[in-house]
Amino acid sequence: MKFMDVHRGMTGITAEQFRAAHAADAAIEGEEGVHFEHAWADPESGTVYCLSEAPSRDAVQRVHERTGHPADEIHSVPLSA
Amino acid sequence: MKFMDVHRGMTGITAEQFRAAHAADAAIEGEEGVHFEHAWADPESGTVYCLSEAPSRDAVQRVHERTGHPADEIHSVPLSA
Repeated sequence: MKFMDVHRGMTGITAEQFRAAHAADAAIEGEEGVHFEHAWADPESGTVYCLSEAPSRDAVQRVHERTGHPADEIHSVPLSA
Repeated sequence: MKFMDVHRGMTGITAEQFRAAHAADAAIEGEEGVHFEHAWADPESGTVYCLSEAPSRDAVQRVHERTGHPADEIHSVPLSA
């Protein structure tokens, strides 16, 4: 299943911090059966979006919690175009 | 520039409605210099995400307004991974 998760409050996140956070998730995602396909960040509003393929919402959150940045929202997105 | 926009209140959107809305945007996007690269929908919460390449936030909104579904949030996402 595909999921889109949203992190807020990341105002001012730098390209380096963003890549490090994504790399930390990628390093352990396999242990939870998750694959983060893409991530996008808006440093101005502090919003980060992550698109993943995962077995469940909980699995997505476990990865983000283990790497220290739990998501504020996680939506299953069964429709895509 | 890349943008992520969010539509809320689309609870129960069907695959057909979602594809029709995306196709309506795609049909006129060139007139505003916008290209919608991907869109994802969560019918349960009624949330739709659209990723675009566009000259400005206003250009993204003009396309969505002309096709009858203005976005609730539009974020520039200069960082991606």
